[in-house]
Amino acid sequence: MAVSRFSYASMNVMDVEAAVRHYIHVVGLRETDRDSDGRVYLQAADTQDHHCLILNPAKTAGVEHLGFKVNDPADLDEAAAAVTAYGIAVTRVPAGALKGQGEGLRFALPSGQDMLLYYHADKVGYLTGMENPNPVSAHSTPGGRVTHLDHTLISAQNPQDDVKFLTEVLDFSLTEKVVDPAGNTLAAFLTCGHTMHDLAIGPGPDKHFHHMAFGMDSRTEVIHGVDLLKEKAVPALEYGITRHGIAGVTTIYFHDPSGNRNEFYNGAYLAPGAPGWVPPIVWQAEHFPRGAFYYENAVPEAFFAEVT
Amino acid sequence: MAVSRFSYASMNVMDVEAAVRHYIHVVGLRETDRDSDGRVYLQAADTQDHHCLILNPAKTAGVEHLGFKVNDPADLDEAAAAVTAYGIAVTRVPAGALKGQGEGLRFALPSGQDMLLYYHADKVGYLTGMENPNPVSAHSTPGGRVTHLDHTLISAQNPQDDVKFLTEVLDFSLTEKVVDPAGNTLAAFLTCGHTMHDLAIGPGPDKHFHHMAFGMDSRTEVIHGVDLLKEKAVPALEYGITRHGIAGVTTIYFHDPSGNRNEFYNGAYLAPGAPGWVPPIVWQAEHFPRGAFYYENAVPEAFFAEVT
Amino acid sequence: MAVSRFSYASMNVMDVEAAVRHYIHVVGLRETDRDSDGRVYLQAADTQDHHCLILNPAKTAGVEHLGFKVNDPADLDEAAAAVTAYGIAVTRVPAGALKGQGEGLRFALPSGQDMLLYYHADKVGYLTGMENPNPVSAHSTPGGRVTHLDHTLISAQNPQDDVKFLTEVLDFSLTEKVVDPAGNTLAAFLTCGHTMHDLAIGPGPDKHFHHMAFGMDSRTEVIHGVDLLKEKAVPALEYGITRHGIAGVTTIYFHDPSGNRNEFYNGAYLAPGAPGWVPPIVWQAEHFPRGAFYYENAVPEAFFAEVT
Amino acid sequence: MAVSRFSYASMNVMDVEAAVRHYIHVVGLRETDRDSDGRVYLQAADTQDHHCLILNPAKTAGVEHLGFKVNDPADLDEAAAAVTAYGIAVTRVPAGALKGQGEGLRFALPSGQDMLLYYHADKVGYLTGMENPNPVSAHSTPGGRVTHLDHTLISAQNPQDDVKFLTEVLDFSLTEKVVDPAGNTLAAFLTCGHTMHDLAIGPGPDKHFHHMAFGMDSRTEVIHGVDLLKEKAVPALEYGITRHGIAGVTTIYFHDPSGNRNEFYNGAYLAPGAPGWVPPIVWQAEHFPRGAFYYENAVPEAFFAEVT
Repeated sequence: MAVSRFSYASMNVMDVEAAVRHYIHVVGLRETDRDSDGRVYLQAADTQDHHCLILNPAKTAGVEHLGFKVNDPADLDEAAAAVTAYGIAVTRVPAGALKGQGEGLRFALPSGQDMLLYYHADKVGYLTGMENPNPVSAHSTPGGRVTHLDHTLISAQNPQDDVKFLTEVLDFSLTEKVVDPAGNTLAAFLTCGHTMHDLAIGPGPDKHFHHMAFGMDSRTEVIHGVDLLKEKAVPALEYGITRHGIAGVTTIYFHDPSGNRNEFYNGAYLAPGAPGWVPPIVWQAEHFPRGAFYYENAVPEAFFAEVT
Repeated sequence: MAVSRFSYASMNVMDVEAAVRHYIHVVGLRETDRDSDGRVYLQAADTQDHHCLILNPAKTAGVEHLGFKVNDPADLDEAAAAVTAYGIAVTRVPAGALKGQGEGLRFALPSGQDMLLYYHADKVGYLTGMENPNPVSAHSTPGGRVTHLDHTLISAQNPQDDVKFLTEVLDFSLTEKVVDPAGNTLAAFLTCGHTMHDLAIGPGPDKHFHHMAFGMDSRTEVIHGVDLLKEKAVPALEYGITRHGIAGVTTIYFHDPSGNRNEFYNGAYLAPGAPGWVPPIVWQAEHFPRGAFYYENAVPEAFFAEVT
Repeated sequence: MAVSRFSYASMNVMDVEAAVRHYIHVVGLRETDRDSDGRVYLQAADTQDHHCLILNPAKTAGVEHLGFKVNDPADLDEAAAAVTAYGIAVTRVPAGALKGQGEGLRFALPSGQDMLLYYHADKVGYLTGMENPNPVSAHSTPGGRVTHLDHTLISAQNPQDDVKFLTEVLDFSLTEKVVDPAGNTLAAFLTCGHTMHDLAIGPGPDKHFHHMAFGMDSRTEVIHGVDLLKEKAVPALEYGITRHGIAGVTTIYFHDPSGNRNEFYNGAYLAPGAPGWVPPIVWQAEHFPRGAFYYENAVPEAFFAEVT
Repeated sequence: MAVSRFSYASMNVMDVEAAVRHYIHVVGLRETDRDSDGRVYLQAADTQDHHCLILNPAKTAGVEHLGFKVNDPADLDEAAAAVTAYGIAVTRVPAGALKGQGEGLRFALPSGQDMLLYYHADKVGYLTGMENPNPVSAHSTPGGRVTHLDHTLISAQNPQDDVKFLTEVLDFSLTEKVVDPAGNTLAAFLTCGHTMHDLAIGPGPDKHFHHMAFGMDSRTEVIHGVDLLKEKAVPALEYGITRHGIAGVTTIYFHDPSGNRNEFYNGAYLAPGAPGWVPPIVWQAEHFPRGAFYYENAVPEAFFAEVT
């Protein structure tokens, strides 16, 4: 069974048009589709699939579900059996229920957020095109110069339960973890692909969403992104640009108009390897502030307290 | 059958110690082991496995074999059957024949270069360590600031034969290709992982090696690498720093003391997807100079003429 | 007598509107004024003065004159006396003859190009404003992200004659020079300010113009500029991005629609000091290719052959 | 009367050898001389003069005096007359009293810190040499990649008194100022050269020193500097890397072992012009937090409270 990568986030927003403006003019996505239920689909420049983000009209913010791709249609059946055997109910989502993607398998993580596995995505191609392309897209694109949606962090009361399910049932690999003196996992970083995280679990209430991260080509692009956030007065983390000790990435957090947290980031290391085979980096809890914010060595209170 | 990533290059060099100095003080690798046959093993900073490069004492330069990893020990048997069925002879390489890696399966590509699949690698850990690490390694490391060995390009008289074998038998995906007006493939870029190339095939004689590429974190690091090459008077491509149209990466080529071509590069895009499912970018041959060297729009004659 | 800095270039162009489009959408200047003789005035983002570039409608390309500022109105009289005493005729240019600047003193260099000294410039302010400004201008400005017009290079049959005049009469300092085995100056770099060149003299025909250079904040911006040139298919030096040994700057050359050469560059070192007091860096002619193009160690034939 | 640039800081330190290690291995200077009074002289890579920093053994930290250069030996006499006429006592410092520099003129600013004007500096040349140099110094230099000492900020109870003296008597130009609603100057940025500040005055006690700033070639170098500070656990501002609204520079502050504050920074804009002729940027006090720290829009309490 191979979940092969994080593909998209389906997010609840209170004002869809405000969110569309944010994700185009601040984050730098392109709108690729809309459907009759009021959903808007968006994609980043360097991804061929139909969408990396679905915006759903809703009364409260938060994550509606997270989409992951499998590498073979038959993996959906295999996953359905394994997830059911683990004691978690699964639902089949017919092709066409969401635009641009085929049949899916939906179920809730132990911490309550919904996950959807699917194989088929319609192709919209790279922003620069599929034939004799220039390496750069038009320089005048508004918004940050993001290349792709990279990973998401959800909150959980018992992160270890999600880790157990994701590694044992869905073959994710654990790449970094933060442990307390008793050995309990406080935060976990898991990959189903080749970089160090596709899905991370942090401390907080079940069913909630911490952030989704958009990749950028360089630290310079992240700095450019920070300048853009300031110019547009987008609510952002009080630490200008910073760096995580965990993953080592250069980063800035900010919020969409509904309060869902976004991240511009650059520099996750490659972490390929067979599931369960590569040992994780371990952080003792006392080093967590440095692991979270390497430059400041302190975690702002709101950073884990505020989720959607 | 899942080949999961390019893991290491085993290279022939005429002067092992000169090569070691080059790969440490110019490329920026760390030496991890030596064996009784005179081989030296090296690894980059951001990879946990035992080696990404094996230097073999030899009378001529070139590639001895290329190592790729699979995600499950059983994949070796599956691959042995599939490769044999395709009409290519396979050899089992016992664990311990090379330091730091387990049992392997070795065979020749249609273009004659040897490939070795294996599952187990001993772990040396990241350069910065596995417990509460700092995100950066000591700033005083000599050599370029490379993070990992990323991909290799070999030459072939009939690149299409390699593409057919790699996609049909080993489940590689084709991400970009250059075609002549008759539709023949002149060059092909294939991935078994999540970035756009693990193995590329270019025009040239069979059994020969064009280059291996070491990844860097940013364009700025590539520029730093060029400065380092000039300071140390390392033989390099006549185009200072340049950019590929294909892959869009920022790049410089240079040679080790035996003449094997190296590359410092940054910026390959992600290209995840099920084998055969994501359409490749297509380059017509007339656009190839721009695809090869976007800034100069011209390919230096020696670039494909010189291989090892 | 203190010439305090290079201020603007007054250039001849065959198609003023095409030139305006180039200097706004490629170079990144802002239009600040026009006059009844068809001249257009432009300025860069980080300069308060009325203009750094005047475009004159003309039948051939080239430099009409170069504007330098003095720090005291009385310096114009002092300069008039000194230049006349050197045997060069001077002309007084009344205030208002050119928009946005006060009275000037005009004369020809020994190599024939006209120079104009003046004290007063009207102020247009920085692009980001003069009160509680943001540090960055709107991110959507078209064109390269240039900060200021930095220096110009003119050609001369006998560069030494210009050096002698500029250092002895106008108190410029020589910061770098290229000498042949007989000790003759082949090229010279002179400053009247705090960076290593305000005016440079290269080999070539008298009365001609080699290039003017626009400063950028970083190497990354220069790379961005190169990408922009390629995307817009602006005629440019065949060496993508490169680096000068002389001055050490990162650089790319390109041409405006009339053929006048422009440069995007970053990184000139500071070279403050009293006139004649700081020794220049000396380049022997055999090292000139490396001094000119450090990465390629070769000078393209057209680089000095083509002037306007 | 032309003070032409800020040249060096003469600092008091409690442990000279600890300070030397800091300024070489953290800041990135080179030691150029020592004298029989226990002083150590250091210089940055891109400056020809004998020193940009003098370390004096002392019982408390702080600034001993600040060295500024004039462009003509006769300017010392002119300055002596003007300063004396303003009612401030001057002292002649004979050539040889400090190594590597000629005769000087010393006096106290209205806020009590000592200033020394001088004309002659011995030349040590650029780090890369004066003949056919490579544009980069050896890549293995320890410490930050600083190019020069750029400016200093001192504290004053009445900043306006220093501004008046510096502009009226020594011909400095005011480039930015922060004013309270009553129009009083809270902070002032003054240049005697071509960039926006050589000397700045901030709120605080008289006779004290806030920081000296070392220039770097790019934002990327500043980030590299921050990584270096963290790796070496150098006490630093709690804001990782940040950006000033005033000057627009990218910056990090840290402390030498005696507590004197240093800054790595990049990106001050050019601000050439005749003294008193170019209008300053004005900041209302309510915008000062954004002017001080653009990303965070808040000034840490210790930032102005801690001076040496």
